[in-house]
Amino acid sequence: VSADHGPSTGNTQPLDSIFHPTSVAVAGAAEGRIGQSFLNCLLDSSFEGPVYPVNPRGGEICGLKSYRHLAEVPGAVDYVISCIPSNLASQLIEDCADKGVKAVAFFTAGFSEMDDPDARQLEVDLISRARERGVRVLGPNCLGVYNPGIGLSFSSDFPCEQGSVGLLCQSGGNAIYFIRAAAQRGIRFSKAVSYGNAADIDESELLEYFAADPDTGMVAAYIEGVKDGGRFLEACHKLAAVKPLVVLKGGATGAGVKAASSHTGALAGSDKVWDTVFRQVNAIRVNYLEEMVDALVALTYLPDLKGRRVAVCGAGGGFSVIAADDYARAGFDLVVLPAQVRQAMSQHIAQFVKSEAGFLMGNPVDITNVITFDSHYGVLKILAGFEDVDLLVGHFSVNNSEWPNTGSGFGVWIDTLTQALGKVHAETAKPSALLIHSVLTPFDMERAVALGQQASQAGLAVFHSSAKAALALERVLAYRERAASIGAR
Amino acid sequence: VSADHGPSTGNTQPLDSIFHPTSVAVAGAAEGRIGQSFLNCLLDSSFEGPVYPVNPRGGEICGLKSYRHLAEVPGAVDYVISCIPSNLASQLIEDCADKGVKAVAFFTAGFSEMDDPDARQLEVDLISRARERGVRVLGPNCLGVYNPGIGLSFSSDFPCEQGSVGLLCQSGGNAIYFIRAAAQRGIRFSKAVSYGNAADIDESELLEYFAADPDTGMVAAYIEGVKDGGRFLEACHKLAAVKPLVVLKGGATGAGVKAASSHTGALAGSDKVWDTVFRQVNAIRVNYLEEMVDALVALTYLPDLKGRRVAVCGAGGGFSVIAADDYARAGFDLVVLPAQVRQAMSQHIAQFVKSEAGFLMGNPVDITNVITFDSHYGVLKILAGFEDVDLLVGHFSVNNSEWPNTGSGFGVWIDTLTQALGKVHAETAKPSALLIHSVLTPFDMERAVALGQQASQAGLAVFHSSAKAALALERVLAYRERAASIGAR
Repeated sequence: VSADHGPSTGNTQPLDSIFHPTSVAVAGAAEGRIGQSFLNCLLDSSFEGPVYPVNPRGGEICGLKSYRHLAEVPGAVDYVISCIPSNLASQLIEDCADKGVKAVAFFTAGFSEMDDPDARQLEVDLISRARERGVRVLGPNCLGVYNPGIGLSFSSDFPCEQGSVGLLCQSGGNAIYFIRAAAQRGIRFSKAVSYGNAADIDESELLEYFAADPDTGMVAAYIEGVKDGGRFLEACHKLAAVKPLVVLKGGATGAGVKAASSHTGALAGSDKVWDTVFRQVNAIRVNYLEEMVDALVALTYLPDLKGRRVAVCGAGGGFSVIAADDYARAGFDLVVLPAQVRQAMSQHIAQFVKSEAGFLMGNPVDITNVITFDSHYGVLKILAGFEDVDLLVGHFSVNNSEWPNTGSGFGVWIDTLTQALGKVHAETAKPSALLIHSVLTPFDMERAVALGQQASQAGLAVFHSSAKAALALERVLAYRERAASIGAR
Repeated sequence: VSADHGPSTGNTQPLDSIFHPTSVAVAGAAEGRIGQSFLNCLLDSSFEGPVYPVNPRGGEICGLKSYRHLAEVPGAVDYVISCIPSNLASQLIEDCADKGVKAVAFFTAGFSEMDDPDARQLEVDLISRARERGVRVLGPNCLGVYNPGIGLSFSSDFPCEQGSVGLLCQSGGNAIYFIRAAAQRGIRFSKAVSYGNAADIDESELLEYFAADPDTGMVAAYIEGVKDGGRFLEACHKLAAVKPLVVLKGGATGAGVKAASSHTGALAGSDKVWDTVFRQVNAIRVNYLEEMVDALVALTYLPDLKGRRVAVCGAGGGFSVIAADDYARAGFDLVVLPAQVRQAMSQHIAQFVKSEAGFLMGNPVDITNVITFDSHYGVLKILAGFEDVDLLVGHFSVNNSEWPNTGSGFGVWIDTLTQALGKVHAETAKPSALLIHSVLTPFDMERAVALGQQASQAGLAVFHSSAKAALALERVLAYRERAASIGAR
């Protein structure tokens, strides 16, 4: 094992020490600085064990007594979050070892990500000290761990409920953005980790951990660089054989590789190699964080989706045309509705309106001009009952919801469609998605967020455009088809 | 000239009658129905001429006397907006001709867009009646005209100020969405028209109008079908020779063509043919309404952009890596900063912080940890002064702006970057763009909208991701390069 990458897990603390600490200290817990943010997160998330601020000045912070030195902390400390300057990091390792601390997450930056040989050497020294003393290191230059099961978190607004997605994310900012964005779409996490420079605990060890973790049903990874190609390939293989792996490779181009190197000191490698690796192991590769969320939504909310035949029902002729183009371009089939299905829809609609003028009664269907729950519920139920439909899609734009109806017509309509689709999904178990697109104002956004959460709770996959939905569904279907063919071999 | 497509302009009212009416009547102006919405729009937009509601029941609506019949209106009427049922449409044409009305915009639907021979015949009859009587018809199945110069509008929240973009949009819903979305990004319109089934006034005649219109500097078009291929090609040619044309073809796939047919009765044609046409005439083809906005932003706010060498400065290591990948993938060059530029940045930054830990000092630059105006202004000015930079880009995510700084740090920072970039652009005239990405909450959206407007007013091109910006810039640069080579021949 070289000094550059992580040791095998046998001779060190296993990763449970970082994902399940029973007590936490924050080193460098100063008022108005980042240490205070970490403390606040632990308190806001109701971390289940004791929390100890450590600061050479002593005093009090966030209502807790601050200890001048780690040695003064009365109880045992499992895990330390370090917010101290980089030149003091090695001494902190000594203090941690003396105290029996199993792992340190270094928010502290100024190591191998710098274009500076001294800073790189500082990291080499830090890790060799940590290995001598048997302390595991997360980072440096990272935000650490989120485990909602025990109230460990690095942002106060992350969900408190546990879910089945494991996340490893080399960038802290991307981790925060991704967890927030995914949470809004009904995704919950088993554990998430921002792991920065990966000087000790690296992507391979984390993949191994998540592969074995019984709480984790699928894994999302944002990776800028890989420390040990062989071990990484093996870890991907092992993981992807038992759970889906969605991966975003940051530093996919020459310019991106350079940026990754100055961000996390990553040696990013050639994009073609990564493409081959991810294909070999049947990982779902994406290009953006939003696409990573989309893929997880498809995996989580459409476990029974088997094919590409889509029926679409929603608002707006022009949006319907664009949606049809989107699905067709992505290789989906806007299934032709047979005469009896169209007749059933027409008969149902005739209860509510005299004329079909202004409606689309093919596929896509657009019956926006009728606003009752029953009109939409009936049409969606007819579409769900048609066996040639693999996926039922509702869509609307939350776009200053008051036009063209003079009252609150369109506002009521978008509620109605959401509820009707949720009910049909509950009754028929037909794979169903809701597309909420075209949000332009804060007022619209408030409605979109509320409707999206309502839809997720009703078991609908929520996306923000037909193009994004089709892209995610195609990736997940291709993954499932490859997985089935590998399984059949 | 067949009954199916528009006549040449010679023997009919010119289109000025629909874009510049001096008086408007709304036929079918009933309380709580769509007619009231059209009236409200005219009143809210302060239409400069008289507005007459017409309704067989008489009475009053929106504070205006309602006339039982068009003939009873005391003054002259130039232009009628029809909200009456389709079976009364032909009689309305007679009434309009008797009154001297030059043009009618039929919101009324139930014509060739229906899968019904009787409805199709109704449209044929309507148009032949209109031609006999010399009345121009917009639509049917459309929202009509927006001309901010005279206060003519079909949505009360469209901007009152006039701009240089002409829009023809076959879908009314798309027109509303597009104008709102573009307005938010600092785009203003000369005139816009939603033209529905295009039974009389069609896309070709509208393109001819916009080509000749001195108020219109560039044209955006959403087109589902074309009535006369030869005339359309000629109209595109004429227009694109004198102003940029950005076009979105709805109904680009088999499924989209079918949807377009039931939406506006359009005969959509083969996508390959359209691709050839749009290439031949050097139109900028896009696939989404958002991409149409992006292209107009690039055309409007980056008239002097000449090349693909980009310097990026913004928040977040992970976002910086992804931005670098985005530009590189789209064929742009994250220009390597020479030693003297980097040194100048470091010297400037050293006034504000002791260490560069946590910063990216290459390209992308990330100096988020310093929050002062001067620190950012100085760095951006150094980048703008480097002559190998064609485009200066600032970027940030408005993503619950309060982390990781405990105070309002990040919130202040995004203001600061916006102001500093605006000032540097004003002083150096360097083509400059601001990317505001990753909005997750209504609170974030409020900030994003405000900052975007501030940036547009400062002359910055505002985009919502580096991928979208790079796509739009590439299209506009390619358009300009082809235009120059055509001009040089």
